[in-house]
Amino acid sequence: MLSIFGSVALDTTRTPFNTEEKILGGAATYASLSASYFVETSLIGIVGTDFPPEYRSILQGKLDLQGLSTKQGNTFHYDSSFDYALSHRTTNKTELNVAADFEPVLPPGYPTPRHLYLANNDPIQNIRLLSKFLSPVITMCDTMEYWIRDKRDQVIRMMSKVEGVVVNDEEARLLCGSANLIKCARMILSFGTKFVIIKKGEHGSILLHNDVLFPTPGYPLEEVVDPTGAGDSFAGGFLGYLAAKNSTDTHTMRQAVIYGNIMGSFAVEDFGVRRLLKLTKEEIELRYNKYLELVRL
Amino acid sequence: MLSIFGSVALDTTRTPFNTEEKILGGAATYASLSASYFVETSLIGIVGTDFPPEYRSILQGKLDLQGLSTKQGNTFHYDSSFDYALSHRTTNKTELNVAADFEPVLPPGYPTPRHLYLANNDPIQNIRLLSKFLSPVITMCDTMEYWIRDKRDQVIRMMSKVEGVVVNDEEARLLCGSANLIKCARMILSFGTKFVIIKKGEHGSILLHNDVLFPTPGYPLEEVVDPTGAGDSFAGGFLGYLAAKNSTDTHTMRQAVIYGNIMGSFAVEDFGVRRLLKLTKEEIELRYNKYLELVRL
Repeated sequence: MLSIFGSVALDTTRTPFNTEEKILGGAATYASLSASYFVETSLIGIVGTDFPPEYRSILQGKLDLQGLSTKQGNTFHYDSSFDYALSHRTTNKTELNVAADFEPVLPPGYPTPRHLYLANNDPIQNIRLLSKFLSPVITMCDTMEYWIRDKRDQVIRMMSKVEGVVVNDEEARLLCGSANLIKCARMILSFGTKFVIIKKGEHGSILLHNDVLFPTPGYPLEEVVDPTGAGDSFAGGFLGYLAAKNSTDTHTMRQAVIYGNIMGSFAVEDFGVRRLLKLTKEEIELRYNKYLELVRL
Repeated sequence: MLSIFGSVALDTTRTPFNTEEKILGGAATYASLSASYFVETSLIGIVGTDFPPEYRSILQGKLDLQGLSTKQGNTFHYDSSFDYALSHRTTNKTELNVAADFEPVLPPGYPTPRHLYLANNDPIQNIRLLSKFLSPVITMCDTMEYWIRDKRDQVIRMMSKVEGVVVNDEEARLLCGSANLIKCARMILSFGTKFVIIKKGEHGSILLHNDVLFPTPGYPLEEVVDPTGAGDSFAGGFLGYLAAKNSTDTHTMRQAVIYGNIMGSFAVEDFGVRRLLKLTKEEIELRYNKYLELVRL
């Protein structure tokens, strides 16, 4: 089982072409839905009593929800706008609501997952959750600008405790104080993690694992509708594939990166999680093979 | 023979770490030196009487200079500064000098090159030079922001007359009015050219040839000293390789793109053309094979 700990949110997303209010979102939602195509996935998070039953039943159809708490109050709400190029996002409002100071409560008998993904939560929350489990096979974490600015030492401490780190290019540069992404990747490895992936949006990603660098281009898309969740879907697809294969050899890691790229490319093809919900395993395999076809010499 | 028409310049390049004044530069210089590792290359351009004899002898050692004119006056001088991340360049001064209104004069008997690269000259100059030759095998052109803003129709006319277009991502977006690079590439093909390459700096490039898309990541470098000339070195390496193979099948085009990426990565490892001058064919092959090793599944 792969467990994913992170935000389940109601997103209000505005692009110059469309606005949708309080749609299903959140880092853990995207990552879990993406991972669920590869492996049994359990979502750890919290929602409020306003969380629409239809959203819950969507999640229930694809995920194990025994780690999803409900608390009196409103669900985390994130309101943001994209520019015309859909490349820059501006935060309009962040209402943490029930997610503020959330301490995950796992029901008795919740199994130790073999794989664990700690999404961009407070690094202290992530470290605490990690300490509840006895040695999962692979743990991986993400972070975000807010924590790097506010709790840099804790972010580094968290990274020292996991096998893998997945961050985007801007986060890597901010964390490491270097413009050069390869240097950033090496610095993150020096914190004590075994592999690092730097996500570069449409430009793909770079994996550094031991001394192996694996740069990949993004899957070329002609239509992007909503970039929300691309990075989370990458992380879910990547770790979901590793979990399904239960391996971390170089070849499997490389394949997992490509599945990550592919899942990110699906996520942005429609608003919110819509595209992730109506995917089929066949479509994923088709795009994976198409990707290999594109990049081959 | 590959002929390359473009600027030969004296560059004053300022980074936060170093400044060098009036060093050998210019789009055609970088492209020709890069191409010279693959095929006999002839440089078409102009310099002033101030052009240092040692620069001329550097070029003479690697290139055919029968198309290089000398005119009373000063050589084109370009003064620019890079930011700390070495990712944004600010122009301090552009002194066209003898390059203003330059009309290339080829000596009697100058052969029709089998391959011709028209660097980022005035599109009207490029079209005129093209008309002097009877059907080279492959002609390829570049352009730049200045011409796209000032002579957009002529840029498109020029692109309709060549087999291939190579531009960077910002130029493609400006020319095509779309943020999506795949859409831009398709639009440029619709102007009448047969293939287009969009260069994305450290993020590599995208080739579109007929219906074949070939996205590649950049060669991962830990140290960048001076980004000047990366794109021109890419173009020179790409067309140099195609010229050497005298082929435009898909496999050769893909290999040429990788050689382009590789030559761009060498160019930025030292100030000005220094790294391009002391390269060996063995180093190029080594890095090419290293690149294939990095990106393979």
